[in-house]
Amino acid sequence: MSESTQQVARILSEALPYIQRFHGKTIVIKYGGNAMVDESLKRSFAKDVVLLKAVGMNPIVVHGGGPQISGTLERVGKQTEFIDGLRVTDAETMEVVEMVLGGLVNKEIVSLINGHGGKAVGLSGKDGDMIKARKISSANIGVDYGHVGEVADIRPALVSTLEADRFIPVIAPIGVGEQGESYNINADSVAGALASKLGAEKLVLMTNTAGVLDKQGNLLTGLDAQQIAHLKDDGTIQGGMMPKVDCALEAVLNGVATSHIIDGRVNHALLLEVLTDKGVGTLVRSEVRSELV
Amino acid sequence: MSESTQQVARILSEALPYIQRFHGKTIVIKYGGNAMVDESLKRSFAKDVVLLKAVGMNPIVVHGGGPQISGTLERVGKQTEFIDGLRVTDAETMEVVEMVLGGLVNKEIVSLINGHGGKAVGLSGKDGDMIKARKISSANIGVDYGHVGEVADIRPALVSTLEADRFIPVIAPIGVGEQGESYNINADSVAGALASKLGAEKLVLMTNTAGVLDKQGNLLTGLDAQQIAHLKDDGTIQGGMMPKVDCALEAVLNGVATSHIIDGRVNHALLLEVLTDKGVGTLVRSEVRSELV
Amino acid sequence: MSESTQQVARILSEALPYIQRFHGKTIVIKYGGNAMVDESLKRSFAKDVVLLKAVGMNPIVVHGGGPQISGTLERVGKQTEFIDGLRVTDAETMEVVEMVLGGLVNKEIVSLINGHGGKAVGLSGKDGDMIKARKISSANIGVDYGHVGEVADIRPALVSTLEADRFIPVIAPIGVGEQGESYNINADSVAGALASKLGAEKLVLMTNTAGVLDKQGNLLTGLDAQQIAHLKDDGTIQGGMMPKVDCALEAVLNGVATSHIIDGRVNHALLLEVLTDKGVGTLVRSEVRSELV
Amino acid sequence: MSESTQQVARILSEALPYIQRFHGKTIVIKYGGNAMVDESLKRSFAKDVVLLKAVGMNPIVVHGGGPQISGTLERVGKQTEFIDGLRVTDAETMEVVEMVLGGLVNKEIVSLINGHGGKAVGLSGKDGDMIKARKISSANIGVDYGHVGEVADIRPALVSTLEADRFIPVIAPIGVGEQGESYNINADSVAGALASKLGAEKLVLMTNTAGVLDKQGNLLTGLDAQQIAHLKDDGTIQGGMMPKVDCALEAVLNGVATSHIIDGRVNHALLLEVLTDKGVGTLVRSEVRSELV
Amino acid sequence: MSESTQQVARILSEALPYIQRFHGKTIVIKYGGNAMVDESLKRSFAKDVVLLKAVGMNPIVVHGGGPQISGTLERVGKQTEFIDGLRVTDAETMEVVEMVLGGLVNKEIVSLINGHGGKAVGLSGKDGDMIKARKISSANIGVDYGHVGEVADIRPALVSTLEADRFIPVIAPIGVGEQGESYNINADSVAGALASKLGAEKLVLMTNTAGVLDKQGNLLTGLDAQQIAHLKDDGTIQGGMMPKVDCALEAVLNGVATSHIIDGRVNHALLLEVLTDKGVGTLVRSEVRSELV
Amino acid sequence: MSESTQQVARILSEALPYIQRFHGKTIVIKYGGNAMVDESLKRSFAKDVVLLKAVGMNPIVVHGGGPQISGTLERVGKQTEFIDGLRVTDAETMEVVEMVLGGLVNKEIVSLINGHGGKAVGLSGKDGDMIKARKISSANIGVDYGHVGEVADIRPALVSTLEADRFIPVIAPIGVGEQGESYNINADSVAGALASKLGAEKLVLMTNTAGVLDKQGNLLTGLDAQQIAHLKDDGTIQGGMMPKVDCALEAVLNGVATSHIIDGRVNHALLLEVLTDKGVGTLVRSEVRSELV
Repeated sequence: MSESTQQVARILSEALPYIQRFHGKTIVIKYGGNAMVDESLKRSFAKDVVLLKAVGMNPIVVHGGGPQISGTLERVGKQTEFIDGLRVTDAETMEVVEMVLGGLVNKEIVSLINGHGGKAVGLSGKDGDMIKARKISSANIGVDYGHVGEVADIRPALVSTLEADRFIPVIAPIGVGEQGESYNINADSVAGALASKLGAEKLVLMTNTAGVLDKQGNLLTGLDAQQIAHLKDDGTIQGGMMPKVDCALEAVLNGVATSHIIDGRVNHALLLEVLTDKGVGTLVRSEVRSELV
Repeated sequence: MSESTQQVARILSEALPYIQRFHGKTIVIKYGGNAMVDESLKRSFAKDVVLLKAVGMNPIVVHGGGPQISGTLERVGKQTEFIDGLRVTDAETMEVVEMVLGGLVNKEIVSLINGHGGKAVGLSGKDGDMIKARKISSANIGVDYGHVGEVADIRPALVSTLEADRFIPVIAPIGVGEQGESYNINADSVAGALASKLGAEKLVLMTNTAGVLDKQGNLLTGLDAQQIAHLKDDGTIQGGMMPKVDCALEAVLNGVATSHIIDGRVNHALLLEVLTDKGVGTLVRSEVRSELV
Repeated sequence: MSESTQQVARILSEALPYIQRFHGKTIVIKYGGNAMVDESLKRSFAKDVVLLKAVGMNPIVVHGGGPQISGTLERVGKQTEFIDGLRVTDAETMEVVEMVLGGLVNKEIVSLINGHGGKAVGLSGKDGDMIKARKISSANIGVDYGHVGEVADIRPALVSTLEADRFIPVIAPIGVGEQGESYNINADSVAGALASKLGAEKLVLMTNTAGVLDKQGNLLTGLDAQQIAHLKDDGTIQGGMMPKVDCALEAVLNGVATSHIIDGRVNHALLLEVLTDKGVGTLVRSEVRSELV
Repeated sequence: MSESTQQVARILSEALPYIQRFHGKTIVIKYGGNAMVDESLKRSFAKDVVLLKAVGMNPIVVHGGGPQISGTLERVGKQTEFIDGLRVTDAETMEVVEMVLGGLVNKEIVSLINGHGGKAVGLSGKDGDMIKARKISSANIGVDYGHVGEVADIRPALVSTLEADRFIPVIAPIGVGEQGESYNINADSVAGALASKLGAEKLVLMTNTAGVLDKQGNLLTGLDAQQIAHLKDDGTIQGGMMPKVDCALEAVLNGVATSHIIDGRVNHALLLEVLTDKGVGTLVRSEVRSELV
Repeated sequence: MSESTQQVARILSEALPYIQRFHGKTIVIKYGGNAMVDESLKRSFAKDVVLLKAVGMNPIVVHGGGPQISGTLERVGKQTEFIDGLRVTDAETMEVVEMVLGGLVNKEIVSLINGHGGKAVGLSGKDGDMIKARKISSANIGVDYGHVGEVADIRPALVSTLEADRFIPVIAPIGVGEQGESYNINADSVAGALASKLGAEKLVLMTNTAGVLDKQGNLLTGLDAQQIAHLKDDGTIQGGMMPKVDCALEAVLNGVATSHIIDGRVNHALLLEVLTDKGVGTLVRSEVRSELV
Repeated sequence: MSESTQQVARILSEALPYIQRFHGKTIVIKYGGNAMVDESLKRSFAKDVVLLKAVGMNPIVVHGGGPQISGTLERVGKQTEFIDGLRVTDAETMEVVEMVLGGLVNKEIVSLINGHGGKAVGLSGKDGDMIKARKISSANIGVDYGHVGEVADIRPALVSTLEADRFIPVIAPIGVGEQGESYNINADSVAGALASKLGAEKLVLMTNTAGVLDKQGNLLTGLDAQQIAHLKDDGTIQGGMMPKVDCALEAVLNGVATSHIIDGRVNHALLLEVLTDKGVGTLVRSEVRSELV
């Protein structure tokens, strides 16, 4: 029997404690960035999701789609403005957002997962009245972002129904307001709110970075609330990483066991993070304990 | 007690036999035409669907969206050709179809129904691998319609899961091929195939006509297979009504109890057809019995 | 499409919010008076009960039968005395009461409901040890009313079993004492006690009056505890209406959402009260809120 | 340890094989005669029924009430005629029958059983539309027996619902016709039809005799179809025993395992027949096997 | 009908209140002593257990096996030492203990019960990780008893699974330590701990004595905590009876309704104790109430 | 990201199709030989079993224990004779067999599996009356093998109960005869009979060989009934391999999908056989199809 065969056996065997620990647990994954573009990364992501489901966990996918939205807006000749990183979203733009996120991107991910043996079901927050939203309160006085919203409430009945029947929910981050109006919501926030509401085991944010880095550029593999406060104070955490870290932290403060900011540019990043000790990013807990997962 | 109050009581009371007979039965509705455009008709449709669900039936909505697709194609400056009434659908066009049907039209109907107290869930045939499709075999030699498909198989697990939990499925007529490729399918056909597969009680096709008319323009309220054969032979049934009648007939030959071609331009057409003896169109059975419903 | 058809549609449609609100809720109905005698009223009552069940509510019928008891007593030549409106009930009289209520009246109502498509099951309080009773404590010193009782306890297991299987319980107001002895109990009180114990949504008392009237003879459509206190103080509520109002009020103070004193002489009074905004009597709540049902 | 204690232990222990064999099985008991009159016999009957239920069987009681009906008819001064042993039953008489059987006798048995710890529920064949009846076809040309009927169909849903929730059904032999009219049916026949429909293990007919006797007056402890034919031919089985034996035989020919014609004048006759080898009457099988129970 | 038949009926009938009271309740029985050796006692024990299960209770058997262990140790020529009544148990001895208790004695009891119609399942505390044990803390300084343990925790999942499916658990008193090592535990203690953890109705300790005797040698039929304290103070309870009484008392202080120290030398002792008023030993409660069972 | 990490990911990912295909399927494993002796092999076996259970399959372990039996027989000074490879087993020897297999070996395997996070439950064929046996019919006239038996019937209720609650059955190959007598049965046969009765997906026989070899000593990786017949004819399959192959073949002829004769001397042989394409032995099917698993 070759060395290689025993290696295979050992690697499979080492996944056992993770499979046991996370059996029946919900894992909410924000899917985006390169992992949604690169063909090899897309396939490895789909396999990972299907594998997690197959071994008894309940993965839920929330996706973004900024670049695809921009592409389509361009195509229809609609110009939009960004203020403080948020796209001002009028009714016509919102229509494009819904078409692209709900009609195109969402269903492509569904197809991708089903093509690898899963039973994915694509949803927007309108389905089953799942994501109730409200207009964001503008930080800039005088700016009206239009249909940009934030999560007001999550109604998890639909997701629970689907999970119980071996389906994998894939969710576009669109919310519905009091009057039935649509809102575009940041996908990280939707993922975080879902994870909190469902009492998820893990919130996994897939990014185009290696994770949170220190000032020397080294990966910080584990962080807790106190450490995060320091790193924000001394400017280590800044820019685009700031809201990701805040989202990750808020989830664990709301009962999610662990949040993970992982490197979506790595093949099988999700599987490695959940089923092995080979973490590929930064783990966030409310309090760092000696035995980090 | 005014006459009017007694009238109210009597009318409600007269719905009882229908409610009892159709309890727990599935009713597949093809929603389209004016009923999807006119605000008053939209509201009355939504109320009807929610009422049918509330009194114990299982309505399933399948919708079209041709005009909305044309509008968006125009907006992005994409020209398409129709051959024998079918839009030649290249990959780029299919992308628009999916965006419009799955992202926009589907979710608007979901919102509409939820706004009247239902719990609708929007799906395309990709979700849960529900509608397996194949490319239509072209009648015209040499014509390639691209992504125009027909139903190859229905996998009803997802719909059954949703029905059992008081959700109302709303389905965009998009199918998925062997290689995961998308197909645009005629919505009537999808509704018919679903009704057959689910052993539905009724298939209801909402149209912009009064139903099937005889040569004098009078409504034919009930038809069976034999009568339909005659009416096709003598040219009474022709044009756009032909495929509708075929679809209605095929469903009843496949086990659906009755098919209905109804006038979607009438407020509450659906409710009137299902819960009263005031039919608003043509009923199709495999054999006409003396006591027509 | 005629005006009339649209009227039908609108009326059915307007029942929707009531059907949704009361889905799965228990509605205890005291059935008696003219509604139990007049053939047309009997039929409309039966239809109403069956309709409420068909659309998802759980009606429970409690009936009286004073006139039928008197008739049979007369027939067997048994004379009885009334003191303060209560029939002094010796053992022989009680035997007649049980025969008439449990054997005759109860089963006629069962037959009536089943004849309209329901699945009624006739019960007395002895069945399943459902209504535990005790002898009423006589207000008049020295008077022994014999087998006249009041509710000591309700054991709802049997009713719950039947409700869960789509049966409609029809209950004769006979209770059973500590030693297995029978008691004749006021049917309003039994209905009220059942409604309280079951956490019913509604207690509906069908009477031979239009409801509670003010001194000018106008119907009072809504009353709360405070208003009732006033109306009793100033003598507006008096006589036979007094115990009805007390019964209605006690139920809402014990957790029933609303009590209704309705006009059983109106065809479909029950249906109108539950499924429309055309109330046919007086609604009693613990506190009147602005939006009266 | 005294002899007596060991006797107790042995006797209890000997019931074990019967308890195991009949676990979860239905036993339909026709209750009548002295056992319904004598106070000691009544108590022992009630204890037996409750014990059978407690150890896991499903007893169902069907009762008669001829003497009580006659008594009440006399009291109301109503004269009736018997032709060939059947009471000619006009509408007024039927009303008395229903009052006495359904209102009085039925509920007394319910009370009796509940007083010994059971959870009995009294029913007539109208409840849950359980016993469908038709008028008997008169043997005597020209005689109209009025409301005397026979079983047309048994709808066992209600009995099944009650059995599943530890209730003991007690059934008055009143059936309901196509038009909702009432029929008085022979209680043995009702018990037999119920036992057949429910696939009962046993049909037990309690009588005022020791069982079937031979010409010398000795008890015949076991009979099969062939033996019964002989005994009828040679006149051993005759008179009132004839229909009992026919009823017992018909049940076993319709799938009931054994029928029993037992001596209801013996205390605990039911318990002895079911739980011991001390049979108290005649056992009827379709074919007598060597090991008679 | 002979006297004897009525006696049989009466005795069966008198078991009813016990069957009703203990329906669905768990009864943990420590089985040992003569009852495990004498053929007649073995049979009567097996019948009793099967009967209790058949009438709806949940018996659980815990057994010892000291004599059988000694016999096998002798056979393999292994000498062991007793200090303060406990066998010093090295690894080799423990192996014999497991073989004898788990492989031989346990399966003999299983066979015995199954031979009388039960569905017994033999288990040791290792199965389903059921009995977690720790090494006893030695009272004698300097003595190492080796693999003699005490209960650290009971994990009742396996027992619950078996009970729910009509199986009868038969348990060898072997526990498993933190490192997977085996411990021999006193069977009374295991029975007591199981009874407490399962919230049993009864703990029954079968002994080779008549029960707890007073100084005159008369049986004490009922004891409470206070009385036990006195009897220990004045030396009435002493020697081998001391730990039995302590075990019985601890169970009732931990929520078991009653403990019983019964005379296993009496045929059907178990059945007599549970199903009759002919107790065969001493009942222990936390507080003696007037109406002792 | 190092090569190694991607290797880990790929290997895990490649197990997916096997996990999906065998979800909820039963896999009966005959455990024996070196894999039961070598410490490293024991650990890898336990991990494999727990992993298969964790990812959704239902492994059932049947074990032998010949060497341990011989050891103990020697220790107690009991001499036994082998005729044609079968140990003549008198009553005393059978007692040792039961002690060793049921008390020692069985519980060690339970402990081993539980120590790796499983919930194993050790059983013999007596438990739940699971394995009914009969004495083998001796091939040699005049030889009485005593308590050597073969499977007469499998009663799978107990195994099904345990599987449904996430327990892993571990079964000693002891059967019980008509009179409750014990039989020692070949463990391969027990495993095969269980697999057939349970409609298992796989029967895996762990051996001390590489599998079935051809005459050149090369492994035959796949065999069907026809090939096996040839290989037996030409003497390729002979000796101890003969009954193994027969057992494997009989199982697939009785409905088991595949049988596997694998090399138990390889670490993680079980896991490799079930979850990878790196088979470690010979696969037996009723008919070899082109695409061997």
